[in-house]
Amino acid sequence: MPGPTEARLRAGSTAFDVISATSGQQADTLAAAEVAYGQPPVDALLRAFHSGAGPRLVQLSSAGYTNYATAQVRDAFKRRGAALCKSSRVYDEPVAQHMLAFMLASARALPETMKVALGDRSWPTASIREQSYLLNRQTVVILGYGSIGIRLAAMCKPFDMRVVGIRQTVRGDEGIEMLSVSDPRVNVILGEADHVVNLLPAHETTQRFFDVVRFAACKPGARFYNGGRGATVDQDALLAALQSGQLSAALLDVTDPEPLPPTHPLWSAPNCVITPHSAGGHGDEHDRLVDHLLGNLARLGKGEPVDDRVY
Amino acid sequence: MPGPTEARLRAGSTAFDVISATSGQQADTLAAAEVAYGQPPVDALLRAFHSGAGPRLVQLSSAGYTNYATAQVRDAFKRRGAALCKSSRVYDEPVAQHMLAFMLASARALPETMKVALGDRSWPTASIREQSYLLNRQTVVILGYGSIGIRLAAMCKPFDMRVVGIRQTVRGDEGIEMLSVSDPRVNVILGEADHVVNLLPAHETTQRFFDVVRFAACKPGARFYNGGRGATVDQDALLAALQSGQLSAALLDVTDPEPLPPTHPLWSAPNCVITPHSAGGHGDEHDRLVDHLLGNLARLGKGEPVDDRVY
Repeated sequence: MPGPTEARLRAGSTAFDVISATSGQQADTLAAAEVAYGQPPVDALLRAFHSGAGPRLVQLSSAGYTNYATAQVRDAFKRRGAALCKSSRVYDEPVAQHMLAFMLASARALPETMKVALGDRSWPTASIREQSYLLNRQTVVILGYGSIGIRLAAMCKPFDMRVVGIRQTVRGDEGIEMLSVSDPRVNVILGEADHVVNLLPAHETTQRFFDVVRFAACKPGARFYNGGRGATVDQDALLAALQSGQLSAALLDVTDPEPLPPTHPLWSAPNCVITPHSAGGHGDEHDRLVDHLLGNLARLGKGEPVDDRVY
Repeated sequence: MPGPTEARLRAGSTAFDVISATSGQQADTLAAAEVAYGQPPVDALLRAFHSGAGPRLVQLSSAGYTNYATAQVRDAFKRRGAALCKSSRVYDEPVAQHMLAFMLASARALPETMKVALGDRSWPTASIREQSYLLNRQTVVILGYGSIGIRLAAMCKPFDMRVVGIRQTVRGDEGIEMLSVSDPRVNVILGEADHVVNLLPAHETTQRFFDVVRFAACKPGARFYNGGRGATVDQDALLAALQSGQLSAALLDVTDPEPLPPTHPLWSAPNCVITPHSAGGHGDEHDRLVDHLLGNLARLGKGEPVDDRVY
């Protein structure tokens, strides 16, 4: 955490002893903490809990919680009576804006014009105009429809798009067309989507969710976006879908592995745009993370339920 | 006009003799036409009107009408009792989407990541995240607030932005903060804008509207977008504003001249992105132009007022 941000945290809360959790942290440090903020190492955290001590609140500085998504961790939190919170609130908005930026950049052929500007600086008006298209009345399918998806759906409203959400458990109050991720109609809906936005979290059930079969189920020429986790995609299948034209573009903020090695063929695949896991970033990210944490500390102090709770 | 598009036009209207107006067209061809579609040469059109003949409807295939924006042309249409119509309806939506694509691409640092992908393929997560920012609650000023601006303002709604419109004559029914282009407070508002979207048409009163003084009036670090006409900007002043950092980015779809020569310094100015006058383009542009024309032919046949009329 940057120095000034840490200072804001210290100034904003004196009621709790908050430690900044880093990857090398030891169990005894965690055992002595009331609140751990950041990404505490799972092993050390489990050892601290096992010793009958450890934080009452672990506030992750990320929207994802892949490393903590095990029954063992969940049970350890339960036994300790501790809360695990993520920071989805902080990242919903930038990730949704990043996905819409991907959709619009692709629709306006910005990657192609950037190449021209960095290349021969020709002025290919006719071909760029021909490649461009309107989002209006197109279909976007959002996989992993949670708080990011809700924001993205709102951002798609002015374009009068058909938005379909796919999530683990459909609640019924989403206000848009929804399907459960296990519904056999998922592949049918993929065949109707001009835009497939993958926001699925990493989980054993989502591992390589997008494989040869899924990409074959997509509407020919669909655009694929990944703002979730790289492991949910079979990248060889993705590469083949781009090379065959089954997908007309892929815009990826996450890959497997990260960083993606410079020699990886996705870098030069047709119409493949890659950003370096930056979708959640924004200049005042650290301030907004601290605001989120301070909000939860205030709730903890008043005995109210904490926000963004996982366990 | 592509062959299939022309066929659609012929199939859609037999009530009028429509000629496709091209740059080399002669006055006698225009004199014999009931309807001219495209970009008829002004001189030939004036000669046709002067001979007491010529089209009842001239339907331009563009949103702009720079060449026809003179008192002489206006008077000639008036004397003939003919209508000049533009095709703004066809271009509002793509240009507004192009401007939002520019705003979001800049906010998500897509030009920088594209350079990385075409360069060393490093993975500069921290610096790209730090350069990224949220649009929420920022101020966007739209100069030349017409039908494109209305659509752009609607697209900015989900981001809870402050939208200020500036136009020749404020009507009072715009539903957003508005200023007349001649209002001395224009420069004050420019000083509050995070995003300056220039959609001004080319006109003697808008020639180099954005000059050294205007750019100096902008908020330091503002982003400048041009989806109007290149001649409304003093490009030397723009270049200097980018080089000094007074503007942190410029995203331009129009320049002066077009094509912009490959040696022009704007191509390599800091954070300057240039698209080749493609903002209005979309794959089905010609079909939508024909739909627009067919709509006006139907109105003409029924004696109803034509749409998108200039004179």
